[in-house]
Amino acid sequence: MNDSFISTVCATATSVCKDASAALKIHIESQQPTKVFFIADTNTAGFASELASTVGGITETHVITVAAGDVNKNIDTLAGIWLELSQNGATRRSVIVNVGGGMITDLGGFVAATFKRGIKYINVPTTLLGAVDAATGGKTAINFNGLKNEIGAFALPMATIVSPVYFKTLSEAEFLSGYAEMIKTALLFDKKLFVSMLEPDDFRSDDVLFIDALERCMAHKGYVTGADPVENGLRKTLNLGHTAGHAIESLLLEKKSPVPHGVAVAYGLLVEMILSHFLLSFPSETLHQYARMLKGYYPPLPFRCSDIERLIEFMRHDKKNATPSQPVFTLLEDVGRPVIDCCPDLDDIKQALELTRDMMP
Amino acid sequence: MNDSFISTVCATATSVCKDASAALKIHIESQQPTKVFFIADTNTAGFASELASTVGGITETHVITVAAGDVNKNIDTLAGIWLELSQNGATRRSVIVNVGGGMITDLGGFVAATFKRGIKYINVPTTLLGAVDAATGGKTAINFNGLKNEIGAFALPMATIVSPVYFKTLSEAEFLSGYAEMIKTALLFDKKLFVSMLEPDDFRSDDVLFIDALERCMAHKGYVTGADPVENGLRKTLNLGHTAGHAIESLLLEKKSPVPHGVAVAYGLLVEMILSHFLLSFPSETLHQYARMLKGYYPPLPFRCSDIERLIEFMRHDKKNATPSQPVFTLLEDVGRPVIDCCPDLDDIKQALELTRDMMP
Repeated sequence: MNDSFISTVCATATSVCKDASAALKIHIESQQPTKVFFIADTNTAGFASELASTVGGITETHVITVAAGDVNKNIDTLAGIWLELSQNGATRRSVIVNVGGGMITDLGGFVAATFKRGIKYINVPTTLLGAVDAATGGKTAINFNGLKNEIGAFALPMATIVSPVYFKTLSEAEFLSGYAEMIKTALLFDKKLFVSMLEPDDFRSDDVLFIDALERCMAHKGYVTGADPVENGLRKTLNLGHTAGHAIESLLLEKKSPVPHGVAVAYGLLVEMILSHFLLSFPSETLHQYARMLKGYYPPLPFRCSDIERLIEFMRHDKKNATPSQPVFTLLEDVGRPVIDCCPDLDDIKQALELTRDMMP
Repeated sequence: MNDSFISTVCATATSVCKDASAALKIHIESQQPTKVFFIADTNTAGFASELASTVGGITETHVITVAAGDVNKNIDTLAGIWLELSQNGATRRSVIVNVGGGMITDLGGFVAATFKRGIKYINVPTTLLGAVDAATGGKTAINFNGLKNEIGAFALPMATIVSPVYFKTLSEAEFLSGYAEMIKTALLFDKKLFVSMLEPDDFRSDDVLFIDALERCMAHKGYVTGADPVENGLRKTLNLGHTAGHAIESLLLEKKSPVPHGVAVAYGLLVEMILSHFLLSFPSETLHQYARMLKGYYPPLPFRCSDIERLIEFMRHDKKNATPSQPVFTLLEDVGRPVIDCCPDLDDIKQALELTRDMMP
């Protein structure tokens, strides 16, 4: 990445910038909080301490560190952070800064949503997937009773600060995971961007191209979640790829061979493009272009024919369902034309999964 | 109470009605939820089961019973309810009905605010204090780390259903506790109502008078909390009497001789009328009229001169404070003319507490 690139999308309080410390300082100065609490995990505590030292001149700071890993996004970690805030003099005028991947921004966001009935918070995502997915839009949560994000709240961060310099060292798998969420967003609002993203190598090697796409995807998500924060309508478009994607993710977790969220979503998008073709005449040419990109860049399809019944079972228990057992999807008439609340029958879903299986190696 | 009185204040989704079951049925029919979960304590579980049986024809119901008492408004009870919902198939389209006093509506409201990032709920308060205070306005919470309502969320109930028939058996203490919150509300918006309420006996003996006042107070609170749900401005007016009132309540809890919330608020209102006189020329005649009512009807003042330093200490740690150690008050220029964000200096607060002590027997 080229770290001399500086830009700010103010309307959505999303900053993509060279210097996260400087951006954070501006937000903290504007708030004049009584104290700033950083929430980080064992991997990001060092970066959180660095950020804390840069705002230390403005107000008192305190870094709370929790064990890394999604398994710790639970009620015990939550109660531990509540206690540390309470014992260290956090008030309604304090600000929380979450520094980490989706696990930290989900957890820390829920802490901020509930401590003294809600205090302000800022996200500093440290993964590409976090930047384009969990850290914007205000969906906060913990896992509970073995279910992902079972307990949570909608609470928008006052800002999300992204410093692409931290994505320089992304592994191939981490890059592809975040990239899938960017493609999903492009599918929702911009055909030209979507078509250009069918060549991931171009984006990996060209900083300007990459950061421009990142900003536009984050701005689109910021616009949608700002207009419909609690998912009454427009926001449901962001679920594209996620009914099938979550089922794939849950299946592989159950089989003890988990894949990154974004990889599951990448394949979920193909399943749902096929369903879109069945129900809404989504162009088959576009879905074949996308399938070629998947074959070329992503790891092999992570499910088999014998998994299809179980995948449908997971979809029937999706949190988004209005009626028990009827999976609900966001589908596409074409790129840029999403349709929410689609309820295909189970035979169509089965056929789409079978076709996905047949199209992939 | 005269249980033939039926009325509905629809604008605020507050129903004061003869038949809580019938009102509940209408709301449930309009929602067509996948399941209705009743949350009650050991005292109200019977009433909850009655209500459940009346809506049982519309959808499946399930009653969750927790141990009574504010001490159980804690994280363990919260997690227990989350688990019971999760294990009994609650979805985003389920509805929670809280049946009980403030402990149940605070706790059950927080459950509803956080389960699957928020599901709809209805309050059926069974105490007068609950009806006029906790059950409207959407402040939900649990106690944590020894602090009242330390963890919570703002989440408006879709309806609050009040059946005055359940207040018929109120003890004197329970009546006076709820009545103090009604007087507070009258002080905020209606001089004539306030003056008439200086004779509590009239209200206890005259159902029409009582229910009219109850409805108007609930409608006023519904209007204010609807206009400013997360307490950015207007809603702060409702804190009248509560900075001093909460300090009195905390003091007596610490001394292990707790008083009902409303009794603490009744005396908090006098302290704050005196402060209002110091800072905003609130008419001394009105505060003396109010002091006479307190002397005539309420239990003796529950603090002494030697408690004043400790009371100020509690105010310095109030959750509402913007700056640590500077208590913030809602005061009055006159009845119907509240002023938010008042920061009297500590000497004025001390003097107001001393005068309160001197005026009372």
